[in-house]
Amino acid sequence: MIGYKTLAVPGPTNMPFEIRQAMDVALEDHRAPDFPEFTKPLLEDVKSIFRTTEGRVFLFPGSGTGGWEAAITNCLSPADTVLTSSFGQFSGLWVEMCSRFRLNVLNYDLDWGEGVPLDLYRRRLEADKHHEIKAVLGCHNETATGVTSDIAGIREILDDLGHPALLFVDGVSSIGSIEFCMDAWGVDVAVAGSQKGFMMPTGMTLIGVSQKAMAACEKALHSSCYFDFRDMAKANDQGYFPYTPPATLMRGLRASIDMMHREGLDNVHARHKHLAEGVRAATRAWGLGNCARRSTLYSDTVTAVVVEPGFDANRIIQAAYHNYGVSLGAGLGKVAGKVFRIGHLGWLNEPMVLQALGGVELAMRDCGVNFTAGSGVGAAIEHYTDRREPLSLAAE
Amino acid sequence: MIGYKTLAVPGPTNMPFEIRQAMDVALEDHRAPDFPEFTKPLLEDVKSIFRTTEGRVFLFPGSGTGGWEAAITNCLSPADTVLTSSFGQFSGLWVEMCSRFRLNVLNYDLDWGEGVPLDLYRRRLEADKHHEIKAVLGCHNETATGVTSDIAGIREILDDLGHPALLFVDGVSSIGSIEFCMDAWGVDVAVAGSQKGFMMPTGMTLIGVSQKAMAACEKALHSSCYFDFRDMAKANDQGYFPYTPPATLMRGLRASIDMMHREGLDNVHARHKHLAEGVRAATRAWGLGNCARRSTLYSDTVTAVVVEPGFDANRIIQAAYHNYGVSLGAGLGKVAGKVFRIGHLGWLNEPMVLQALGGVELAMRDCGVNFTAGSGVGAAIEHYTDRREPLSLAAE
Amino acid sequence: MIGYKTLAVPGPTNMPFEIRQAMDVALEDHRAPDFPEFTKPLLEDVKSIFRTTEGRVFLFPGSGTGGWEAAITNCLSPADTVLTSSFGQFSGLWVEMCSRFRLNVLNYDLDWGEGVPLDLYRRRLEADKHHEIKAVLGCHNETATGVTSDIAGIREILDDLGHPALLFVDGVSSIGSIEFCMDAWGVDVAVAGSQKGFMMPTGMTLIGVSQKAMAACEKALHSSCYFDFRDMAKANDQGYFPYTPPATLMRGLRASIDMMHREGLDNVHARHKHLAEGVRAATRAWGLGNCARRSTLYSDTVTAVVVEPGFDANRIIQAAYHNYGVSLGAGLGKVAGKVFRIGHLGWLNEPMVLQALGGVELAMRDCGVNFTAGSGVGAAIEHYTDRREPLSLAAE
Amino acid sequence: MIGYKTLAVPGPTNMPFEIRQAMDVALEDHRAPDFPEFTKPLLEDVKSIFRTTEGRVFLFPGSGTGGWEAAITNCLSPADTVLTSSFGQFSGLWVEMCSRFRLNVLNYDLDWGEGVPLDLYRRRLEADKHHEIKAVLGCHNETATGVTSDIAGIREILDDLGHPALLFVDGVSSIGSIEFCMDAWGVDVAVAGSQKGFMMPTGMTLIGVSQKAMAACEKALHSSCYFDFRDMAKANDQGYFPYTPPATLMRGLRASIDMMHREGLDNVHARHKHLAEGVRAATRAWGLGNCARRSTLYSDTVTAVVVEPGFDANRIIQAAYHNYGVSLGAGLGKVAGKVFRIGHLGWLNEPMVLQALGGVELAMRDCGVNFTAGSGVGAAIEHYTDRREPLSLAAE
Repeated sequence: MIGYKTLAVPGPTNMPFEIRQAMDVALEDHRAPDFPEFTKPLLEDVKSIFRTTEGRVFLFPGSGTGGWEAAITNCLSPADTVLTSSFGQFSGLWVEMCSRFRLNVLNYDLDWGEGVPLDLYRRRLEADKHHEIKAVLGCHNETATGVTSDIAGIREILDDLGHPALLFVDGVSSIGSIEFCMDAWGVDVAVAGSQKGFMMPTGMTLIGVSQKAMAACEKALHSSCYFDFRDMAKANDQGYFPYTPPATLMRGLRASIDMMHREGLDNVHARHKHLAEGVRAATRAWGLGNCARRSTLYSDTVTAVVVEPGFDANRIIQAAYHNYGVSLGAGLGKVAGKVFRIGHLGWLNEPMVLQALGGVELAMRDCGVNFTAGSGVGAAIEHYTDRREPLSLAAE
Repeated sequence: MIGYKTLAVPGPTNMPFEIRQAMDVALEDHRAPDFPEFTKPLLEDVKSIFRTTEGRVFLFPGSGTGGWEAAITNCLSPADTVLTSSFGQFSGLWVEMCSRFRLNVLNYDLDWGEGVPLDLYRRRLEADKHHEIKAVLGCHNETATGVTSDIAGIREILDDLGHPALLFVDGVSSIGSIEFCMDAWGVDVAVAGSQKGFMMPTGMTLIGVSQKAMAACEKALHSSCYFDFRDMAKANDQGYFPYTPPATLMRGLRASIDMMHREGLDNVHARHKHLAEGVRAATRAWGLGNCARRSTLYSDTVTAVVVEPGFDANRIIQAAYHNYGVSLGAGLGKVAGKVFRIGHLGWLNEPMVLQALGGVELAMRDCGVNFTAGSGVGAAIEHYTDRREPLSLAAE
Repeated sequence: MIGYKTLAVPGPTNMPFEIRQAMDVALEDHRAPDFPEFTKPLLEDVKSIFRTTEGRVFLFPGSGTGGWEAAITNCLSPADTVLTSSFGQFSGLWVEMCSRFRLNVLNYDLDWGEGVPLDLYRRRLEADKHHEIKAVLGCHNETATGVTSDIAGIREILDDLGHPALLFVDGVSSIGSIEFCMDAWGVDVAVAGSQKGFMMPTGMTLIGVSQKAMAACEKALHSSCYFDFRDMAKANDQGYFPYTPPATLMRGLRASIDMMHREGLDNVHARHKHLAEGVRAATRAWGLGNCARRSTLYSDTVTAVVVEPGFDANRIIQAAYHNYGVSLGAGLGKVAGKVFRIGHLGWLNEPMVLQALGGVELAMRDCGVNFTAGSGVGAAIEHYTDRREPLSLAAE
Repeated sequence: MIGYKTLAVPGPTNMPFEIRQAMDVALEDHRAPDFPEFTKPLLEDVKSIFRTTEGRVFLFPGSGTGGWEAAITNCLSPADTVLTSSFGQFSGLWVEMCSRFRLNVLNYDLDWGEGVPLDLYRRRLEADKHHEIKAVLGCHNETATGVTSDIAGIREILDDLGHPALLFVDGVSSIGSIEFCMDAWGVDVAVAGSQKGFMMPTGMTLIGVSQKAMAACEKALHSSCYFDFRDMAKANDQGYFPYTPPATLMRGLRASIDMMHREGLDNVHARHKHLAEGVRAATRAWGLGNCARRSTLYSDTVTAVVVEPGFDANRIIQAAYHNYGVSLGAGLGKVAGKVFRIGHLGWLNEPMVLQALGGVELAMRDCGVNFTAGSGVGAAIEHYTDRREPLSLAAE
């Protein structure tokens, strides 16, 4: 392949040089006397990205799937009841995992493009007078459809009803990019991944755990040692780990957090929104649809673009990849062939988004899609320049 | 710290530039159309390091602990009986994990410095007429004491007795460094880690799984989705993964395997033996002991050096680290304060070993240990030069 | 700065990961016994990029300016007559250097936007019956105005007239990107730089030298030891250098040559033409001019875009840089404020060009330039997709 | 080659990760509006390493040889008289260069192992009543023989005599490692190289220039444009360069200076002395000689070890390199075959020196040299541990 690839999937993302360099080091002894001087501030500072001071954040070698499993195996026991909803590939997989762990799953299976059904959740929780429901699951950002759900809304329901269920949130493609307030929203287990908003390589899951969730571990019949929160907490308190930690990724995380702090987390979120709106303007200019049903559901980290009925979206993805080295996200499961996805998260600015949109236009032209060349890119450019002050670079 | 650190722990190891560079790349789309062109040969070639053609090797974001858990959760069910032995920190932790997963554990708790007790295993298996024992565990290389056990011997017993138990082996600090023959020894689950003989960063566990072990998955009551062998096998067959794989580490693994192939796996093993013997010569010259009870148990990847009774070995470790940037392994558990450990595995040649031994001598002098400066280094030099042809560089 | 910078200057260029990695190594002993095993093939293979088999190529720590100086100090003596032309910043500086070295300079000072004046050169050489002119200078690609001159044409004149003058060519921003045939064109000294078509960091000048030029060294009154061709040739013949060579850059050059060979030098040139035409289509769509006077002069590595009279082009450059991290080339000397330059050379594909063009559009919008957003990008997209098969990625 | 190479030549040196990472970046536009924000503090701070506040330091793509040439071509004119001394390969080459530039050279050709002959210099300068001598040359650290000369002593003579000659110093293998005081010693041109005490790759020469030397440029008949101090000064004053600068190396220099400041320049010098003494202790323990004639001449950056008469030192160098990957410096010129050189400068601590010494011992054993294995390493260890507090790591 000649020239750089254009990485426009919703994770992994474009990795900043600063993070790449931070990890480009000799391996280190994770039992060294001064290792805690590195790990303790890291474990403290990562909490700011989850916006928690009450809870703690654990770092496991793993993926988001590991984070889902950690939530279940630490806090629940077989046959426990959970309230869930599925409206996309990833929300659906977590629900399926609940079944495999032999939980009693109360699931709302919704159209893809929908989000967490607050009304249905409220009704079901209201009906749960005996508090059989031990945990409520919410997918904050469904990566397959580009839908962001209202997690604060779930908390409001639980609080209104005085329901003690734990709140588990999949924040893999939201935390670090979209506003996420673990404490304010009363999230008990929040699952994140290194390769999304944290702009790092794959291989680490970051799990925010509230004190309430830690307490729940005491009663749960654990079925994992690897993901055991209590083992991890005990070792972390000394600045160490119960087994070999992903030290190289942790060096990257240090850089990632420092970068987010420097930009300011609010600015990070605002930048994602700003860039996402350009992508949505392009989509409209192309005359194509957004898989998310309503504008209130639009995700600021990924847009699933719906192609014309009958047209196979995978042709665009193939053309983009093979002809121009542009990686777009494919439609998964129920929307396979119906959408292509543009990831717009992480270490990104306006020209980088224009590169991705330009790549889409090249591919659509190669596939004979009917649109005006430059129209999508132009719409994004108009959006980006209609503001008084350019956003992204002013931030640092 | 001025100058390079001297990394003389038994993993992580010194990382070759070739591996570091292979991982120093942009992040990549693990769902790209051509990703299988990378993964399929990788998954095939990694088998050669385990010396298996019949089995397969899975790559999980994780640590050796994750590998232990994967063996248990995939192939066994609660209350299954396992035959185990503990004679060091790591063999002991795996046995403890068996208990936490509510297995029925038949354990031989031996003095630290011993290895897998073949005679006791034979007797116990002989007595198991009804084949209650579902799995036999063996720690190939106990990293805490520098003891290598006879895994082929376990296989011989099982075969002699026609016992159908699965054979699980912890090869974390042996595979890639010390001879390991998964097929020839009939190993059913072999656990390795990226940060030892594979010379890579921490964060990936490599698990060799026999067809017999894959079949056992069908009957076992799984308690993990994350480590599920069958999900992984199904996706791997297409060149993909059931969830986000550690792609960056996999790029490093490609380089690691290529390097081992270029050197020749037999040469890799011979080099480790050659270098280890120099360390043992140094230890003798210092007048200190080896934690391994008998020379047949001496490990070629790590030596646990026993200090004089009453002397705190941790003083040497602290002096080495703080005064000279030399990382030695501490004594763990029962041998804490009694030994310091010198790792001698991975990307290593004679001058690198001399650097570590020199570092030990500096630290011992600072601690007032009574020995002749240069004696240990000199003994190693004599050993290394008593051969006709120098080994390590001739190999490539 | 958030996100990657967009590097759209005519050198340095976007550096491929392969080259970056090749240089990301430990320092090495350039007097090592096996150093010639690396240098000899390198010095041989680099000749292919200059398309010479008769001449040789020297590598100096230096810049293009050093290359100009090397040509003068090795092959000429004070008071020697040279025939030159200046039509831009860089052609002009070389001429100025000739004066500083006390040469007798016959210079044609042309409008910026013009190229080497073949007719004038012919007339002057024809008149030089006594062959006073010792060297003819030609700037192959004037980086300041985006003009490519006809070097083969100069050779034709010299041959027609049987004139023995040496032919010196500044190929800094052409060699490796635009067709350059040292032997076929009878070039005696050809100057290139590491940071243009070779896609490497700044710091090395590569100088192609014909046998005729080597012979000329014998008679010239040298005024440099550092740039001495004969010292270099003598040491190079043994695979070594007369003083410390830029070994790290040479590792990068190895990778650079390998990459160009893999793509095929003809393909490299065709790709540059293809991408350049997209940029020119965009320029036309914006309603702006090209600093080069005629389409036959258009450079395939850089386009100097002429803005509306009275508008300060530097405003666009400042907005692009400060608001979007896009580096454009400024107008130099006589065209300062009248043009901005888009570099399109090196490790580049279509989406990367679209990123640069998109960046220009963002900046022009911020400056109130009157054009339709997306029009330039769209024109380039149309150009890139009007061909049957996409070019750049098919090449490897 | 298996394992890291041991780089024990007197430059290039072991490169710190911090410097390597600082240079492992995207290429950058050296005409960017904010480039001076980087270059101005850099050009200011580098002066501290030369210990000058009155003078300035120029950075050229080049080598030490380029630095020598810059001194001559900027400050002198053909036929000017210079007072010089040669007592090794590098002092000799600079003298030879003076001749090639047609200077009138008054040279003292001394035995190799001697240093700058202060008495002879005094006598000659005293005799120079008419101040015909325009410049006095001194090689601060002769890399070929491991001899450090007394530059302050030259200044004292010049001051005593009120002689106005410029003082040119070759500090290539001293500046950044051994005490060097440009202002206090009244040095007018001080030449350094990136690949020695600055711990960087080859390719940049750093030249300290006094105001007196700058003034001398005005009267000199320059014969270089490339190395022109006045062009450079003029551009540097704006934060720019007269031609493409080695920006990547400059990023490395930023890190290098920061590291030296953090350690403290006095500590850097003390560390070099401390480490060098260990090497000299080893040499004595082996029963071998030091090429430097007197202990007052011993260099703290390189030791030229004299082997037994009749024994070919190159055999040790070859064995070290081919059998163990240890790069030692060869004897050059008059001492070829009589010495091997151990470089001990740059990013170095005690265990790294022991690695090099261990490597020498391995090679000497392979060559049948008669000595006790471990004796040299042991002597160094004794030296390093006889101090109350270990030096190198305490510094940071």
